[in-house]
Amino acid sequence: MRISRPKRPQQREVGVMDQRIPSDEGRRRAVVEGLAPRVDDGRFPIKRSVGDRVVVEADAFVDGHDVVTVMLLHRRAAVSGWSEVPMVALGNDRWRAEFTVHHLGRYLYTVTAWADRFETWRRDLAKRVEAGQDVDVDLLVGAALVAEAAERADDDDRSVLETWATELRGEGSSITRTSLALDADLAELMASHPDRRLATICDRELSVVVDPVRARFSTWYELFPRSASPEPGRHGTFRDVIDRLPYIAGMGFDVLYLPPIHPIGRTYRKGANNATRAGPGDPGVPWAIGGPEGGHTAVNPDLGTIDDFRELLTAAERLGISIALDLAFQCSPDHPFVREHPTWFRQRPDGSVQYAENPPKKYEDIYPFDFESPDWRELWAALADIVRYWVGQGVRILRVDNPHTKPFPFWDWLIGQIKADHPDVLFLAEAFTRPKVMYRLAKIGFSQSYTYFTWRNSKQELVDYFTELTRTNLREFFRPNAWPNTPDILHEVLQHGGRAAFQFRLVLAATLCASYGIYGPAFELMEHTAREPGSEEYLNAEKYELRHWDIDRPDSLAPFIGQVNRIRHEHRALQANDGLAFHPISDDRLIAYSKRTPDRSDVVLTIVNLDPQHVRGGMLELPLEEMGIDPTGGYEAVDLLDGTTYLWQGPRNRIELDPATSPASILHIRPRLRSEAEFEYYL
Amino acid sequence: MRISRPKRPQQREVGVMDQRIPSDEGRRRAVVEGLAPRVDDGRFPIKRSVGDRVVVEADAFVDGHDVVTVMLLHRRAAVSGWSEVPMVALGNDRWRAEFTVHHLGRYLYTVTAWADRFETWRRDLAKRVEAGQDVDVDLLVGAALVAEAAERADDDDRSVLETWATELRGEGSSITRTSLALDADLAELMASHPDRRLATICDRELSVVVDPVRARFSTWYELFPRSASPEPGRHGTFRDVIDRLPYIAGMGFDVLYLPPIHPIGRTYRKGANNATRAGPGDPGVPWAIGGPEGGHTAVNPDLGTIDDFRELLTAAERLGISIALDLAFQCSPDHPFVREHPTWFRQRPDGSVQYAENPPKKYEDIYPFDFESPDWRELWAALADIVRYWVGQGVRILRVDNPHTKPFPFWDWLIGQIKADHPDVLFLAEAFTRPKVMYRLAKIGFSQSYTYFTWRNSKQELVDYFTELTRTNLREFFRPNAWPNTPDILHEVLQHGGRAAFQFRLVLAATLCASYGIYGPAFELMEHTAREPGSEEYLNAEKYELRHWDIDRPDSLAPFIGQVNRIRHEHRALQANDGLAFHPISDDRLIAYSKRTPDRSDVVLTIVNLDPQHVRGGMLELPLEEMGIDPTGGYEAVDLLDGTTYLWQGPRNRIELDPATSPASILHIRPRLRSEAEFEYYL
Repeated sequence: MRISRPKRPQQREVGVMDQRIPSDEGRRRAVVEGLAPRVDDGRFPIKRSVGDRVVVEADAFVDGHDVVTVMLLHRRAAVSGWSEVPMVALGNDRWRAEFTVHHLGRYLYTVTAWADRFETWRRDLAKRVEAGQDVDVDLLVGAALVAEAAERADDDDRSVLETWATELRGEGSSITRTSLALDADLAELMASHPDRRLATICDRELSVVVDPVRARFSTWYELFPRSASPEPGRHGTFRDVIDRLPYIAGMGFDVLYLPPIHPIGRTYRKGANNATRAGPGDPGVPWAIGGPEGGHTAVNPDLGTIDDFRELLTAAERLGISIALDLAFQCSPDHPFVREHPTWFRQRPDGSVQYAENPPKKYEDIYPFDFESPDWRELWAALADIVRYWVGQGVRILRVDNPHTKPFPFWDWLIGQIKADHPDVLFLAEAFTRPKVMYRLAKIGFSQSYTYFTWRNSKQELVDYFTELTRTNLREFFRPNAWPNTPDILHEVLQHGGRAAFQFRLVLAATLCASYGIYGPAFELMEHTAREPGSEEYLNAEKYELRHWDIDRPDSLAPFIGQVNRIRHEHRALQANDGLAFHPISDDRLIAYSKRTPDRSDVVLTIVNLDPQHVRGGMLELPLEEMGIDPTGGYEAVDLLDGTTYLWQGPRNRIELDPATSPASILHIRPRLRSEAEFEYYL
Repeated sequence: MRISRPKRPQQREVGVMDQRIPSDEGRRRAVVEGLAPRVDDGRFPIKRSVGDRVVVEADAFVDGHDVVTVMLLHRRAAVSGWSEVPMVALGNDRWRAEFTVHHLGRYLYTVTAWADRFETWRRDLAKRVEAGQDVDVDLLVGAALVAEAAERADDDDRSVLETWATELRGEGSSITRTSLALDADLAELMASHPDRRLATICDRELSVVVDPVRARFSTWYELFPRSASPEPGRHGTFRDVIDRLPYIAGMGFDVLYLPPIHPIGRTYRKGANNATRAGPGDPGVPWAIGGPEGGHTAVNPDLGTIDDFRELLTAAERLGISIALDLAFQCSPDHPFVREHPTWFRQRPDGSVQYAENPPKKYEDIYPFDFESPDWRELWAALADIVRYWVGQGVRILRVDNPHTKPFPFWDWLIGQIKADHPDVLFLAEAFTRPKVMYRLAKIGFSQSYTYFTWRNSKQELVDYFTELTRTNLREFFRPNAWPNTPDILHEVLQHGGRAAFQFRLVLAATLCASYGIYGPAFELMEHTAREPGSEEYLNAEKYELRHWDIDRPDSLAPFIGQVNRIRHEHRALQANDGLAFHPISDDRLIAYSKRTPDRSDVVLTIVNLDPQHVRGGMLELPLEEMGIDPTGGYEAVDLLDGTTYLWQGPRNRIELDPATSPASILHIRPRLRSEAEFEYYL
C-alpha cells in the first residue's frame, strides 16, 4: 500500500519566534554553536552584495544517540517570518546550508535544531529489522508518533497521517506494517510536521548587510576636475569632466571619484609643492574645505554650479559610471561652521582655534572637529545632513577621508542612519593606518576600504597580505580596494620601475582585488617624479596646483588599462575575491595566482614578473584537480592580453615573462581539450 | 623644583561600574575588543586552579593619534569593586596584563580603556620642545588639564596638583615650566586621577572558575573494591580497600576512583564475561544500580556500611588520597525509583519500561531516565539530592558515567548548583564520544575529561592530539585526563606490547598529561588478555565478576609507577599542560617532548620508544633558547628514572632506547654547567 500526499516546496515560512519562549529550557536537548560566518560574536554584520550566496555552517548535536534535525532560518530584517532550509551534515557534528540575498538592506539568519523522535525511531527500527528482532511494540511506538504528528498537521496531511497511524497499529502482517513504517513518503510527511516544542534556537541572530554589486566589484578612477580642462592654465570644470567621461568609460572604469568639490579656504592656503603660503593664483588644497561661498554643501564656483554637477551625475550614469564624492569632515578657517558653531572646535587658551597637528607638524589651514565637544549631538546631526544633502543630489558613493581620525561610534551611527533610508549608498574608508583600526572601520559599516596594497610589492608581501584578506574572517566584512597610486602616494616601484612597473602594478591590483582604482591621468601617463629622493609625494602634486595632462600621448597606458578592465568585466572569477589561490612558481620575482568562481566555470590565472628590468622564467605548479582539470589530460591557457593560446599538460609548466614586452600574463584556463568523441562526425 | 606626593600601590579598588551608564556613548572614543582568554564569546567560563595566573590580552585603540590607557579589571564574583592592573602594550594595538586567582569559586574580568588627554598632551609637548617650537600656549593647555585633575583628586593629591597647575601657568621661564610639565612624578600623579568619564568598558564580563589544584594536577587509580579482598573468592569490602591504601599511596596516586558502590539489580543481572543470565554467585555489574536495599544513596551491603565508607574516606585523606565516586545516572529494574517514580522512565505501549538500547543491542538490566519526561524538574531535583548526599558524606570528586547521554542543560544546572555551595567539588566527564560533545561538556562545567589518549598510539597521533589539547583554545576549558586502560578498554598495544608497552604508555600518560589514571591492579600486573581477538574487552572482566589480584607479584610494575609518580610530584613542569612542546627526533617510533614552567625554572624532557620490540635510535633536536639554555655552552640532562647524568652540547644529540631495559627516558634539563668562575677558589 502507498499513501499519497500533496508535494510541498522545501522552503517554508514559519513563525519560529514563538518557539523561543524558555518555558521548558531544561528539556531543550539540542545544542547549536559555532555559527559561521559571523563577525566578533555576531556583534557586527557580515557583508554581501545582491545575488550573493550566504553559506552558513553550525555545530549542532544532541545528547545520546538521537537523530538531530537542523534548520537554517533566514529572513529580510524588514520582513517577519523566517524562511527555512534544512542543513546537511558535513561530519563531525558540522552542518551546512545556504541562502541567496536578493534585496538590498539587512538580512538575519540563525539556526535551530531538535532531537527528532520520528527519525530516531525510524533509524532504530531499520536496525532492529535487519537484526531480525520482533518489532511489534516498536510499530506501536511509531504509530503513536505518527498520530501525534497528525494532531499538528492541517486538514489534508492530518487525515493522511491518521490513516498511516491506523495502518501501523492495525491488523496487517508485521512485514507489511514494517515496510509501511519505513516508507520514504511517510518520512517526508513526518518531516513536514516535526515536534519542535523542544527545539533549540541559537541565541544570537546574525545579520548580513546586502549592498549593490558595485560594493564587491568596482573599478575606480580618481581625477581632479580642476585639471580636466583641455586648455593648459584654465581651471577645469564639471563640464570638462563631462567631456572626459567617454575617455574614462573607454578605459572600463565604473566609479569616478572626485576630490572635494567645495569652496577652498583662503587663510593659510598652501602653495605649489606644499609651500606654506599660497601665491595669488594658487587654487589651494581641496581638502581645506569652506570659504565665503559656503562649506560642505556648497560647490566651488570655479568648478561650476550644482546644476553642472547634477548634469555630470546624469551624464556619468548614462555611461555606467557612478560619481564618488569625497567626505572630508574638517574645515578651513574660513568655513561657515567656524563662525556659526565655535563649540564644535577646540579652543586654545589664547582664544585661537585648535588647528590640525601631528606634532611637531602643524596644519594651520585645517581645523578638525572636536568630537568630545559637549555639543557633539548637534555636530553629528549637521554632518549627517551633509551626507543627506549629497545623497539627495543623487550621489551614491562616498569616499571618506581619514575616517580613523573621527570616533568609531560616529561612523557606526552615521552609516547606519544613511543606509537605513538608502541601502544602496556605499562608503569607502580612506584609512591608511594600523590594521586593527582599519578592520574596525569595516566592521562598523564601511563598504570598502583602502589597503596596504600600495606598499606590498615583493612576492612574499603580496602572498601574505592577500592570503590574510581572502582566507581569514576578514573576507566576511573587509572589502579591499587596491590602489597602485593616489595623489599622496607615488611608491618607489613606480618612481623607478618604468612602464613595466606601471603595467604590472595595474595588473596586480586588477586581478588580485575585485575592486581597485588608479589616480589618473597621472597613472596612465606614468607620472613618476617624486618631489625629492626618498619621498612618496609627487613633484608638482595636483593637491596644490592645476595640472594639464596630455591624455592623447602615444605612450599612454590607457589602451592597456582598457584591455585589463575588459578582461575583468568578461570574467566573473575576477569580480570577487573568495576564489583567490596562490601557486608555487620557481622564481622569487615571479608571482602566480588564480581566481575561480565557486562552480569553477571561470578560472583565470595571472602570472606577473615583479622585476621591471629583467626577463624572468620559472616552473609553475598548478593544483589541477582543485581547478576542475583532469590531471591526466590536456588543457588550454588563453592569454587574454595577447590572444596566444597555450596547450598545457600536467601541473608543471615553464613560464617566461619579459618586462619589456609583457610583464604579466592573464590566462583564461579552460578545463579540457576536446577529444575525438566530441566531434559530430565521430559517431 | 620637585613637588613630592605620597606613593600608592599600583592596584586600586575603584567603582568602575558607575562609568558604564551609556549617558555619553557617542563620545566614548576608545574601542576594546578581542579579549582573551574567552570561551565561545564569553558565554562559558575559563578554568583555573587556586594560585594560577590569568594572563589577559585585548585589542584597544582610539581614533586619531591620542594615547590610550588600558586597564584590566578583575574581581571575585562574590565581592563587589574591581581591582585594576594597567595593561602593557605589546604592539599592533594588543595589550596584556595578568592577575592571580587565590580563592575557590568564580572571578570576573574585563578591560576598560580611554583616550588619555594628559598623556597625549605630554607626548606632544616633548615633540614640540624637541622641534624647538614655542610652547607657551601648550603649557597653559597642560595647566588646565592638571587643574581639572585636582578637582577629581582627594585632599592630599588635590593640593599637590593645584600647586603644579599654578607653576605650569606661572611666572617661571618657559624652560623651567616645560621641565616641570614633563616631570615623571607629575605623570604618575596624573595617572592616579585620570579623566575616565568617557572610558569604554568592554561589554562582556568574562568569568573564571577557580578549582582546587587537584583539578589541574591529579594522579588517579581505579579499583573494584569487591576485588580488594586478600583472600581469593571472598567479596572485597571498604575495609579491604583501607588496607590497600598504603600500597596505592606508595605508588604515588592521589585520587582513588571506585566504580559504583550501590546495591546491584537482580533482574536481568549479567553473568561472567557479559553472559545474558547471571549464575547464583555472580555479583552483577556495579553500573546496574539499585535493588531492594536502595538506590543511589545506598551502599551495597557486600561492601560494608556507610560508616565503613566514611572510614575509608578519612583513612584515604590521611594519606593524601581523595576518593572519587562514580555518578551513573541510570537504574536497574529493581531501583526504588522505578516503582516510586514511573514517570521518570519512558513507558512502552505494552506497559513495560523502556530499557537502554543501542539498536540492535539491548541492555535490559538498565533503565535510562527519560529527561523529556513532563516531570523533569522533580527528576533533576532528585539527582541533585543524590550528589548533595555524597558531598555531605565528604566526597569531593565525582567521575560521571556517560554524561553525554543526558541533556547538556541538566549538567550545566547540576554542576552550577553543586559548585555554588561547594566550589571544591570536581566532576570528571567519562564521555568517550565525538569531540564537540566532549568539549561542550567541558564548557558547561566538567572539571576534567577523559580523552582519546587510549587510542592515540602512533607518534603523529600523539603529537596532533596533544597539540590540539594544549595549543588551541581548548586549554582554557578542557582539562584532559589520560588513561592507558580502563575496565572497558584494553587497547591492542597493551594486548601485544608486553611489559615495554605498559611502561611506555604509563610514561606517556604521566608526562604528556598533568592528570592521568590507570585501572589497577590490572595495569601494574600487566593484565593483557582480551575476551576475543580484535576485542578491546578484558577476558574475565571485573565488571561482571570478582577477581583476585596478587599485588605482590615480583614482576609488578608498582615500583616503576611509583618512581614515575614521584617524578611528577617533584617536577612542577609536569603538573600543568601549558608548557608542552614536541621536538623533532629522527625516528618514526621515537617521540620527544618537553614541559616547562612559565619561568623555565623546571624543564623536563621525555623521550619514548613507541616500538615495544626493537631498539630505536635517532637524532634529537632541541630548541635550546626557548628552554633557557645558552646554545653555545653545555647543559645537563639527568635521567630521572635511572639516575644517569648526560653532559650535552648544542641542540642535536643522539638518543637510543632499548625497550627491553628502558622504553622511555624522563630527563631533567638543567640549563648550564658550572664554569670555573663559580668555584670559590677561582677568585
